Order: sequence, then C-alpha cells, then structure tokens
Amino acid sequence: MSRFLRERFRNLEPYVPGEQPQDRKYLKLNTNESPYPPSPAVLAAKNKEENLQLYPDPDARQLTEVLAEKYNVSPNQIFAGNGSDEVLALIFQAFCDHEHEICYPDLTYGFYPVFSAFCGLKKYEIPLKADFTIDSRDYDSCGKHVLLANPNAPSGLCLKKGEIKNILRTNPDHLVIIDEAYIDFGGESSVPLIKKYDNLIVVQTFSKSRSLAGARIGYAIASEELIADLKKIKFSFNPYNINRLSMNVGKAAVLDEEYYSTCCRELIQTREKTKQALRDLNFAVTDSKANFLFVKPSGIGGEEFYLALKKRGILVRHFDIPRITDYVRISIGTPSQMDCFLEETKKILDEQRGQVTKR
Amino acid sequence: MSRFLRERFRNLEPYVPGEQPQDRKYLKLNTNESPYPPSPAVLAAKNKEENLQLYPDPDARQLTEVLAEKYNVSPNQIFAGNGSDEVLALIFQAFCDHEHEICYPDLTYGFYPVFSAFCGLKKYEIPLKADFTIDSRDYDSCGKHVLLANPNAPSGLCLKKGEIKNILRTNPDHLVIIDEAYIDFGGESSVPLIKKYDNLIVVQTFSKSRSLAGARIGYAIASEELIADLKKIKFSFNPYNINRLSMNVGKAAVLDEEYYSTCCRELIQTREKTKQALRDLNFAVTDSKANFLFVKPSGIGGEEFYLALKKRGILVRHFDIPRITDYVRISIGTPSQMDCFLEETKKILDEQRGQVTKR
Repeated sequence: MSRFLRERFRNLEPYVPGEQPQDRKYLKLNTNESPYPPSPAVLAAKNKEENLQLYPDPDARQLTEVLAEKYNVSPNQIFAGNGSDEVLALIFQAFCDHEHEICYPDLTYGFYPVFSAFCGLKKYEIPLKADFTIDSRDYDSCGKHVLLANPNAPSGLCLKKGEIKNILRTNPDHLVIIDEAYIDFGGESSVPLIKKYDNLIVVQTFSKSRSLAGARIGYAIASEELIADLKKIKFSFNPYNINRLSMNVGKAAVLDEEYYSTCCRELIQTREKTKQALRDLNFAVTDSKANFLFVKPSGIGGEEFYLALKKRGILVRHFDIPRITDYVRISIGTPSQMDCFLEETKKILDEQRGQVTKR
Repeated sequence: MSRFLRERFRNLEPYVPGEQPQDRKYLKLNTNESPYPPSPAVLAAKNKEENLQLYPDPDARQLTEVLAEKYNVSPNQIFAGNGSDEVLALIFQAFCDHEHEICYPDLTYGFYPVFSAFCGLKKYEIPLKADFTIDSRDYDSCGKHVLLANPNAPSGLCLKKGEIKNILRTNPDHLVIIDEAYIDFGGESSVPLIKKYDNLIVVQTFSKSRSLAGARIGYAIASEELIADLKKIKFSFNPYNINRLSMNVGKAAVLDEEYYSTCCRELIQTREKTKQALRDLNFAVTDSKANFLFVKPSGIGGEEFYLALKKRGILVRHFDIPRITDYVRISIGTPSQMDCFLEETKKILDEQRGQVTKR
C-alpha cells in the first residue's frame, strides 16, 4: 500500500476470483465458465473485425439493438458494460449512498459486499433460510434497494416470479436489482416485469450461457430513465467501455440463438444427471437451476473433498465461510467431463472409506 | 433521468466524445485515431485466440510482462486498464478526495474535469499561458495532486523533463500524474523518473501510436506500492477488466515494435509537412509533438472552417470553448489523406476569398 491511498480504501478487502493455478493442466469446474466454445459464427465475427485502430461506438448500438430485439424492449432500455461486474459496479455508484442503502442475502455472489464496501456503504446482509432458500418476505417493504441473484449463487436456487413481484410492489421507492447471470439454465426471467415496474433492473451476462466469459460483456435491462442514468455515469467514467471485438462477438452470439440454446439444453441434462448421481452417493445437493451444483459430500468434508479433487487434477470451488464449509460448488462441464469428475469422486470416497476402516 | 439517481450526479455533465456521424463516409481527422491498421502480427494474435468461453487472467500478466520488459520496470509496476480513461478514472477514485484535491490546466484533455465532478471534487484548473504553453512553475509546490497531459491536448505542446522533475521534487507529498497518450510522436517520456520519484504515475495507451483504439487498452507505470493500490481498487470494482482478445492483441503490439515505430516515423513526417503547409497558408500552428495539429486558420473562423470541411466530407474537431473558438484540432492521417485535407482547405480558402471580394 502506498502512502497516497485514500483513507477509506485502506481496509478494503477486494473480491477474490476463483483460483487459476498454472502449475499443471486442470479440469476447471470452479469458475462457472461454459464448457462449450463460442459458436462458429461468433469466431467468424471476431476474425472479420480488423479496424482495431478505430474507437468503438460508445453507445454500443449494434449490441444493444440485437438485445432489444431479443428481449422485446427498446434499445434505450439496454445498458451494456464490460462484464456484468462493471454493470453492477456502476449501478452501485449511480443509485446507492448513505441515504439509499442496499441489501442482499448473506450467502450470494461474493462481490456484492465488496461493492458495498467500495462505495462506503454498510453491509445489509439478510440470512438465507437453513435450506439456503431466500425467504422473499424478508425483502417485502424493506426500505432499501434490494439486490438478488436469481438463480442465487452458490445455491443455484430460484425465486418465483410472484415473489419478485411482491418485492417490487412493496418497495416502490427503492430499486430491485435482479442479477440473472445464470437465468438461461432453467430459471424464470424477470425481464417481462420491466414494462410494469419502473424500479426493476435486470442484469445479465454473456459469460455463462453464451460462452463469452473471455470477451467481458454484461448488460442491464430497465426503464429508459434508469438506463439513461447508467449511461450518464458511464460517460463520466469510461465511455468506450465495450471494445470493438467484444461488440462484434456479442452481437453474433445473440443472433446465433440456436447454437446457444442447444448448449444450454445439453448442460441442463448433464446437470440433472450429475445431480442424481451425487444424490445416489448420499451427497446433499440443492435443486440448482444454474450451471453449477452446490453439494455437501457424504463421508468427507468440503475442504477435504476439494483438496482431494485438486490433487487429481480437478478444480471445484470451496468457500472459506463457516456456514458452508462442508460444501463445494461444482461447475457443470461436458458429459464426459462430468463422467470423469464422478469417477474420481467415487475413487476419493473409496479411499476415504479405506482410511476410515484402517483407523 | 430517473427518480433514483443519486443527488450528487443530477447535474453531472458527462464527457462528450468526438462526433461519429453515420450519414455519410467521412475522412475522420477528429478523434486522433491512428491512420494505420494494426500490424499483421496483431491481427494474427486476434484470430488465434478462440477460448472466449474462459475468463481472462485478472492480473493481465501476459500484457504487463511484455510492457515491463519494454519499459525496464517490474511487472508489479504496471497496471493495465480498459483504455487509459479507465486507468485515469481509477486513479481519481483511489487517490483523490476533499483532502487530496487535484489540479490540471484549463485547456487539456476534456475528461479531467469530468472525473473531478464524478468524484465530487472541486475543479482546480490552472490557465495555460497565452501561447498555450504550460507554465510549469504554476505547479511547483502547489499543494495538490497534479495531472498533466504531456504532450498536452489540444495544443500538442510538451513539457521538458526538467520541468516535470521540478514539479515532482517540490510536491513530494502529492502525486504527479503524467498522461502520455501522445508521447510516442516526439515527446520525452517521464517513465525513467519512476525509479527516483515515488509520487509519479505515468499513464499511456494503446489507442494512438499502437493503432488499437478499438481494443481499449491503457496502463499506468509507477512504484509497486501505487500499482498495488490501483489493483486493490480494480479488484473491488471490475477484476476482469481486460478481455482475452485485448490482452492478446496488446501483447502482440508491444512485441511488434518495428512496425509501430515505422508508423510513428511516417506520421511525424506527415505532421511536420502538414504543419509547414498550413503555416504557408498563414495559419497559426502550435509546435505539436502529438498525432494532431492545433490550428488557427487564416481568413476564416474556427467553426466556419470546421463546418466547411465537414460539408466536404472531412471531420476535424472544433471545441465550443471561448478561448479556443478560433481554433480547430486536426488529427494527422496518412500522407495522401493529408494531401486531400490540404487540397480541400485551399478550395475553402479560395471560396472564402471570393465571397469576401464579392461583398
């Protein structure tokens, strides 16, 4: 730390991304990336763009127009960002302060409390129920902006549309921000509610279901007024936030709906099959509708299981959080990757049983 | 504007990028883009990257390592951002507040006062001298962080290294931030001063001399402590700010030094030739060391000249700022583009003379 850093940031604890060790090749089931490559049309769009000496369109119109078409809203209702992290960061900047605090579950995307700290806000974390579900009534008339991941992470559990409607209805003077990073794997999107509720912002990303984590594209859908606010903030911070290549691959991905919905269907099948296989091993598995499973292994601790998998070249995510220390989060890969994961898991359990017997 | 926007942003005036009209094809001499395409090696690196489903390295190591090698510093002394605008925005966030204000010239990159406003800071603008030079003594012992573009925009004029040293030496407890967006076109870089001064941050970009405005890459070079601070801020805001494609093309551009130094040499020749040609037309032209000229036309007003060029399909930049309303800024294109510009300029002046005679 330098002697110049602002006082308020000295104790800031930044977000810690999932590990990316370089010591060997791993089967990466730890950062919820898509196991599928981008579509051929997306790669073609990337190769075609050569005018890199020119600035991108700061309004990212080509991208917002195809998204608007897909979601049946106006292009002025779409705000594009350099990944949904940037979109969320700018939402915090634009709308949250000491008089307009924001709350979210105690177990959710780990970046939310970091954004709060970055903006100098108090953390208002509302505990999940014992089964990791969100009790939506905790948020009704809560007097704060509400930020919910739906499906939530790391549980993968969804809220129902009626529950979100109640939160919107009972907090008319506060924003309800629904982070739908994983919505394409089985949840019900809140986008259609935007027509009715001017206090709703839906945030989505190209990083998961559109296989573009490496291109950094996220977006918000909301009323034209809210989107105009976000643009004002962006144009005061970093106007050219979407580069030409990301703009082009993003557009091509939206237009290649068939490829990506096929990938999603296959991923959902693999998830359900893996879910069942793990339950057959007596693992506790939440009913995740995301591209990952949240799992309490049987006969082995969470951290132990994570370490045993890592030794065998498979990365999953273990969180150093007391309440979920017995759990791991496993991103869903291709069918053959998950077969490999299940095989190694069984070997680990066999070894474990052997050791227990020997003791 | 929505009813949710924070009070402090309601009167914020965002940065206004150079116009990008879509009504016809223009010769674009208005946004200081490079007239040269990226090198073949850069395009090859772009085409080779296909793993877009994977997150980029949040430390952007491949990029910071080649930059460190080039500038003879440690990779821990380099901070990479999504364009130098983002780098500057994060510098403002990290180091500036009411107790640590920042000052800059009254005529400079138009984004600096926007960053100040965004951070809720007072604007401290120090007037340039009548000839648009910076009087460096204005900044000696000034008791504020200092932000200077070198070469400055829109004048293109440079500070000498001795002047920057004095500013650094006399403000040991404040940061001196030198924005070297245009340094490769003839100025003297302050990077070697980093070894001696722990209060110096040099900001550079790939948008100008490396023909990558469309890929959005900027970086800061400073002490390891200052860079650690910027990383802390970034990891609390948007960890994956550099996408995989930008990382790869950026790296390839740094490695292809020969191509880009040839482009710079040609551009400098074209600039000097254009400078002389305009002076021959009795235009006042500052001694710009950037990839643009700052010019007061003779026999026609600044706005009039800008409009006449636009009508003829050539875009230059006119600033609606009283002190420089007689001036335009002209980005340097290829030799043939500048021939075209000069030809049209002569026609405009001829027409103008005809009209004046007729009156």
